[in-house]
Amino acid sequence: MPTLERHDDVFFLDLGGGENRLHPDWLTEVDAALDEVEKAEGPRALVTAATGKIYSNGLDLDWLFAHPEEHPDYVARVQDLLARMLSLPVFTVAAVQGHAFAAGAMLSLAHDVRVMRADRGFWCLPEADINIPFTPGMSALIQARLAPQVAHVAMTTGRRYGGTDAAAAGIVDQAVPEDDVRPTAVEIAAAQAAKAAHPTLGTIKSRLYAPVLDLLRERG
Amino acid sequence: MPTLERHDDVFFLDLGGGENRLHPDWLTEVDAALDEVEKAEGPRALVTAATGKIYSNGLDLDWLFAHPEEHPDYVARVQDLLARMLSLPVFTVAAVQGHAFAAGAMLSLAHDVRVMRADRGFWCLPEADINIPFTPGMSALIQARLAPQVAHVAMTTGRRYGGTDAAAAGIVDQAVPEDDVRPTAVEIAAAQAAKAAHPTLGTIKSRLYAPVLDLLRERG
Amino acid sequence: MPTLERHDDVFFLDLGGGENRLHPDWLTEVDAALDEVEKAEGPRALVTAATGKIYSNGLDLDWLFAHPEEHPDYVARVQDLLARMLSLPVFTVAAVQGHAFAAGAMLSLAHDVRVMRADRGFWCLPEADINIPFTPGMSALIQARLAPQVAHVAMTTGRRYGGTDAAAAGIVDQAVPEDDVRPTAVEIAAAQAAKAAHPTLGTIKSRLYAPVLDLLRERG
Repeated sequence: MPTLERHDDVFFLDLGGGENRLHPDWLTEVDAALDEVEKAEGPRALVTAATGKIYSNGLDLDWLFAHPEEHPDYVARVQDLLARMLSLPVFTVAAVQGHAFAAGAMLSLAHDVRVMRADRGFWCLPEADINIPFTPGMSALIQARLAPQVAHVAMTTGRRYGGTDAAAAGIVDQAVPEDDVRPTAVEIAAAQAAKAAHPTLGTIKSRLYAPVLDLLRERG
Repeated sequence: MPTLERHDDVFFLDLGGGENRLHPDWLTEVDAALDEVEKAEGPRALVTAATGKIYSNGLDLDWLFAHPEEHPDYVARVQDLLARMLSLPVFTVAAVQGHAFAAGAMLSLAHDVRVMRADRGFWCLPEADINIPFTPGMSALIQARLAPQVAHVAMTTGRRYGGTDAAAAGIVDQAVPEDDVRPTAVEIAAAQAAKAAHPTLGTIKSRLYAPVLDLLRERG
Repeated sequence: MPTLERHDDVFFLDLGGGENRLHPDWLTEVDAALDEVEKAEGPRALVTAATGKIYSNGLDLDWLFAHPEEHPDYVARVQDLLARMLSLPVFTVAAVQGHAFAAGAMLSLAHDVRVMRADRGFWCLPEADINIPFTPGMSALIQARLAPQVAHVAMTTGRRYGGTDAAAAGIVDQAVPEDDVRPTAVEIAAAQAAKAAHPTLGTIKSRLYAPVLDLLRERG
């Protein structure tokens, strides 16, 4: 389960030590953590990461197949999380220490900056292979954060990007050795913490992604 | 005239051995070929290429000047082809073995991936020089597929990109020696053929380019 | 105050030798210069530059704080200038010989091409630090001209890009030694001067940025 700690101006959200799929309970915990980050005052920033080989494997498909009647509500909750992270009024850095797949990869894209482990782990959108099309909101999120052909290839081929490839494609901002992932993310976040003292950062992000946020919050 | 062949999972559409301008009869033949590709079932992908020095020189201006009253219908047909290729539910690769100019260059952009000959041939949008503005749909297509300043420079200056320049600018995905253009395109296409067995790929592309497709299909 | 000269086919607009902030009188002078450029006929292009260490530092905040009741009208005038430059029917090159900050940086983005001094001067959007959110129109302008993550980082962190960094990020097209800034800009502009002899170039730009122009011209 996700846990939140604070060191100086940087909140650190550990997404968990397993697959860190977006189970409804996991979403509730992450939302509560983001409430705490938002509610705090003064300079602050957020780093998310996980322990082990996986950052997040995305939707909890086992739970979803067991609760098909909850499909629309569940997707709405996932989209709400993506929208919230994308417009969070504090600076956010994803420390991608392991695999980021599907909605886990999208969650990383909703952060301001991504630092990824260089030598192991993949960032991947396997939707075209597993026969789950992106919702319009998810599609818009990915397009808004990546160069056109990078988004196209990632979304239509399911290509797996290692850290170095992901950095070359601009999917992540930096690929670094394993031991540097978290410290680099914290350093970047700490340098931007002062911006959360006033609401401008949140306004800037909300205007940057207004059409994406509208689509993510649209209810069918 | 365009001809369609199939080798294993890869359809190969030869656009012709001349200028391969988008004459109404040429459009009819290409549409029939795409019908056959769509109608087929199971794993399949599409490679387009031409023989000779030209991939396609774009609109058939001679025909158009001789049939000015058909201008709106003709442009609508060209835009329909671009929209169809952009959202085709099979993976598409343009093997650009020679010049791709104007609507011929746009047709290449409507494919999922482009492989271009490195040492000869230009990819070029000469519209600003020949005094033919891009339609809103064509403008949106180009912008959706290229980095912002690449689209801007290509569209406002009519710069001619050789294969190596086009690859550096992200206009094409790879620039390779002449003899490798077709095999490389076929290899890329074959690797994605399995995706056409279910409708997800078409849905992904249609959502990626929903606003572009709307503009291309808009009638005046 | 801004001054306009013409050498052969290239108009040269000197934005001034100070901070070149967008004071209302400065806006009036620049508008008059652009009237002259538009009114002229035949081949022509425009280079803007300044003298000294600053290209433009953006909004005239001193004047604005002294005239708070004019805030909406003032912002509307600035947005009109950005929209006008973005869609000017002649080719435009910004010769960024010194600092381009905030609305001064945005003004440079409204040109077709940017040439920047390599070794001194910064291109910077400090809005997140000085607590002035981008208007929706300004936000759209920046996003339409830069790669997604470049726009995001520039807008959310206030990062200062020197010429070489700005060129690497695609914010400017070239970074060159100080003495080459103006000659390079003039050479690029002169090569495109012939395009201004017919209205196609203006139509191309207006269609490329139709949604941005709508937002910039929107009145609250």
